[in-house]
Amino acid sequence: MTQQKATNITWHDGNVTREERARALKQKGATVWMTGLSASGKSTIAVALEQVLLQRGKLAYRLDGDNIRHGLNKNLGFSAEDRAENIRRIGEVAKLFADAGIIAVTSFISPYKADRDNVRKLHLDAKLPFFEVFVDLPLDVAEQRDPKGLYKKARAGQLKGFTGIDDPYEAPVKPELHLKTHRMSVEESVRAILELLESGGTLRA
Amino acid sequence: MTQQKATNITWHDGNVTREERARALKQKGATVWMTGLSASGKSTIAVALEQVLLQRGKLAYRLDGDNIRHGLNKNLGFSAEDRAENIRRIGEVAKLFADAGIIAVTSFISPYKADRDNVRKLHLDAKLPFFEVFVDLPLDVAEQRDPKGLYKKARAGQLKGFTGIDDPYEAPVKPELHLKTHRMSVEESVRAILELLESGGTLRA
Repeated sequence: MTQQKATNITWHDGNVTREERARALKQKGATVWMTGLSASGKSTIAVALEQVLLQRGKLAYRLDGDNIRHGLNKNLGFSAEDRAENIRRIGEVAKLFADAGIIAVTSFISPYKADRDNVRKLHLDAKLPFFEVFVDLPLDVAEQRDPKGLYKKARAGQLKGFTGIDDPYEAPVKPELHLKTHRMSVEESVRAILELLESGGTLRA
Repeated sequence: MTQQKATNITWHDGNVTREERARALKQKGATVWMTGLSASGKSTIAVALEQVLLQRGKLAYRLDGDNIRHGLNKNLGFSAEDRAENIRRIGEVAKLFADAGIIAVTSFISPYKADRDNVRKLHLDAKLPFFEVFVDLPLDVAEQRDPKGLYKKARAGQLKGFTGIDDPYEAPVKPELHLKTHRMSVEESVRAILELLESGGTLRA
């Protein structure tokens, strides 16, 4: 302990620990990784989850296409290599947020199992909780919803390598949570994630 | 406002706003960008600052070589292009933390003015505060300290492109804060940054 002469300014050797952060925030850092087809409901659930957590005094932050594709990953395209790098970087940033004590909530299609498994390993190696949430809507239903008209464009050949149409979606084998959003409301999905976080000890110091 | 049928689960359309985050955290997000020579004191000040902020109930998170070079930026080397990309990515991540309402504290040499100016612009375009802190130790003093023996290696030609030896350090022209760490204690430096944050309104909702 390095005691300083003046009042109010004291610090100890070494970094702020995760335990100190958890006590201050009354929560533990974690990553909630949502994966699923375009239009499966990932972003809608993430937005609601973030709000509900904040109402309960818990700090979450969403990583999604809006704040990643135009920022950190704006120099990446859609080649196989760039797609892998896209998910790798998002995983690293989620890990930093989790390390900071925050609940990182990501909503990316993240169709490849290997990429998701790498992100899981990153977290587990750092002793940070990783919750893979499979937002599972049948392709035909997603295609009917098609709020952005992307499936239509993909079917017309105007979008190449579109997940579910001409690129595979590799479903999670053992996700921490499997949300069948065809038969669940947003509220039910949010509640299920909250229960997952509660049972994982994330929502307390 | 979308009212849900069950208790405790309600949310509104759209994202959590910065104002909502600020009210919950009793602070505003910002980036404190420390720049200066190797051994100038950046990390020491950052570690103390983070602790002091946490003691005051304020949430900060440090980005430094330890959590960035081995993670997000592990696929970058030391070419001119990679150095620029290194700082760009760190700037984007700091911006995400600031957007999340957190005080991002970065401690990287970040020797080139153009790179730092790009990060400043990223923040200002997003209406997020950016505080450039020049941690200014004379080169001869840094070289005498040389806690990691890096200057010695650079002088011996074992490290190429070392800032201050065979690569330039472009000093900030108009930093928000200029810390002359040869004549200031760590405590004085931390106090000066706290005053900067206070006067910028960062430490209140």
